[in-house]
Amino acid sequence: MSFGRLIESIAQKKNPTVAGLDPKLDFLPEYIKESAFAKFGNTLEGAAQALFEFNVGMIDAIYDIVPAVKPQCAYYELYGWQGMRALAHTINYAKQKGMFVIIDGKRNDIGSTMQAYSCAHLGEISVNCEKITPFGGDALTVNGYLGSDCIEPLISVCNSSDKGIFVLCKTSNPSSGELQDRLIDNVPVYKAMGLMCEKWGDATPKKYGYSSVGAVVGATYPEQLSELRRDLPHTFFLVPGYGAQGGKAEDIALAFDDKGMGAIVNSSRALMCAYKNSGCDERDYAQAARAEALRMRDEINLFIPPMSLS
Amino acid sequence: MSFGRLIESIAQKKNPTVAGLDPKLDFLPEYIKESAFAKFGNTLEGAAQALFEFNVGMIDAIYDIVPAVKPQCAYYELYGWQGMRALAHTINYAKQKGMFVIIDGKRNDIGSTMQAYSCAHLGEISVNCEKITPFGGDALTVNGYLGSDCIEPLISVCNSSDKGIFVLCKTSNPSSGELQDRLIDNVPVYKAMGLMCEKWGDATPKKYGYSSVGAVVGATYPEQLSELRRDLPHTFFLVPGYGAQGGKAEDIALAFDDKGMGAIVNSSRALMCAYKNSGCDERDYAQAARAEALRMRDEINLFIPPMSLS
Repeated sequence: MSFGRLIESIAQKKNPTVAGLDPKLDFLPEYIKESAFAKFGNTLEGAAQALFEFNVGMIDAIYDIVPAVKPQCAYYELYGWQGMRALAHTINYAKQKGMFVIIDGKRNDIGSTMQAYSCAHLGEISVNCEKITPFGGDALTVNGYLGSDCIEPLISVCNSSDKGIFVLCKTSNPSSGELQDRLIDNVPVYKAMGLMCEKWGDATPKKYGYSSVGAVVGATYPEQLSELRRDLPHTFFLVPGYGAQGGKAEDIALAFDDKGMGAIVNSSRALMCAYKNSGCDERDYAQAARAEALRMRDEINLFIPPMSLS
Repeated sequence: MSFGRLIESIAQKKNPTVAGLDPKLDFLPEYIKESAFAKFGNTLEGAAQALFEFNVGMIDAIYDIVPAVKPQCAYYELYGWQGMRALAHTINYAKQKGMFVIIDGKRNDIGSTMQAYSCAHLGEISVNCEKITPFGGDALTVNGYLGSDCIEPLISVCNSSDKGIFVLCKTSNPSSGELQDRLIDNVPVYKAMGLMCEKWGDATPKKYGYSSVGAVVGATYPEQLSELRRDLPHTFFLVPGYGAQGGKAEDIALAFDDKGMGAIVNSSRALMCAYKNSGCDERDYAQAARAEALRMRDEINLFIPPMSLS
């Protein structure tokens, strides 16, 4: 239940990280693009085919050591509905390989519309009595600006289908404080949002102490990360901002509890572009990503307590 | 520039309304679904085909009297990538008919990712030097929780491609006040967000007094609607909540300036389900939607000053 499956996979692989799959064309090896464009032309179809092939290589290289992937919707929408097809195929492939899939969509809307997003990304729909799973993610990132009725339809799906959500609290970007750090009744907005996550999580079962309602808290703000870990004891964290955005492993450690649990750390560009950063042949991009995934795992494990599910 | 095209179309059609296209299967006439399922089976393909056919009928029936459509992304994602293809085709069809297209996605993320969303929904991308327009909307709804670097990439696209955005300020749902009504330095969050819209809009050209950065302000909160109209003189409003959600025409009037401009009012279910509400034959759904669109136009015009672009 809740984030139990994810937590168990993190413990089994001794790896609290998630591979971000944000495959913009610039990040892809030339040989993959050339092959796709030769077959499908300089089209969205060609771009989407290149994305999917790249993702398959990434997943094949890391699925036995990394518990989860996080495809960023924007980089699939960027290539139109063909890109969204590549997203659906990527999710399906990652799940076949036993990975936990966090769809990074930061969706938000009024209740009836969130019902649709919930079914689209985490649940299923009925088409003339045929049950179909549109995207089939395990978790979805969402934005809580609209309050509880934006979140409630998600909680139904989490409870009925063993899924989770991550609500934006303190985001990793430079201007996140413009709204999120402002005080309401002496509490910053990011913390007020975090406290709502705790409340929303009360309506879900807990496993290993954590509810189905997680929070996004950026590694680039270690002080807030530490504060939120202390004040939100049942809220599992998705932590972006490590690596390319500047977050360090010692900062990351603040996201974890005293059992070495409670968070999963994302890395996107550092993995996808590992072949560029290491200067290896582009055809070795997947192995370069694996090496970086191992390095990241080991570096983070240096700073957190030994993992224990007990 | 900015919302100039939209404002001119509103003035020309004397109609400050936008037709929401949120075509969940339950809303569609049986004959459209039966025909699509007979051809494509009880599949996402069948559902998406039904959606698109329904939308074409809606657009054909209203394009000469309604200036804009607002497809809600959730109801297309609900039917997978096939639904997203129906979204792309719907946008394309509406634009062929001369309508202004507001993509209701409420997208939000860090700057680099917002760059991708901007290009996906409003701009174009380069695929091996081929310029391609992925979705081709005229405006996009966004969520400003992440602050300025979430908005800046959108402003670039607005300025270079004559597009606009609507930032969520005061949303129409019952729980919107949980965060949006809280005070920061004695200013409610919705107004702080509105003031940021004014600031962001300063970086865009103004036409008829309005910038490219609009705001979403719900008709269900008339007091806040009136306050924001007074305090955000350069911010064009997208007003949901009329009709099915309970907003009345006299409340809607508060969104407009003394020239009868400054806002566009959305109606989704009341138009899409007009054939159900009026009890007419389902094959007349499009004409029923047209009748309701005319009724809505005339009702709103009763309460606002005569439109003037001068």
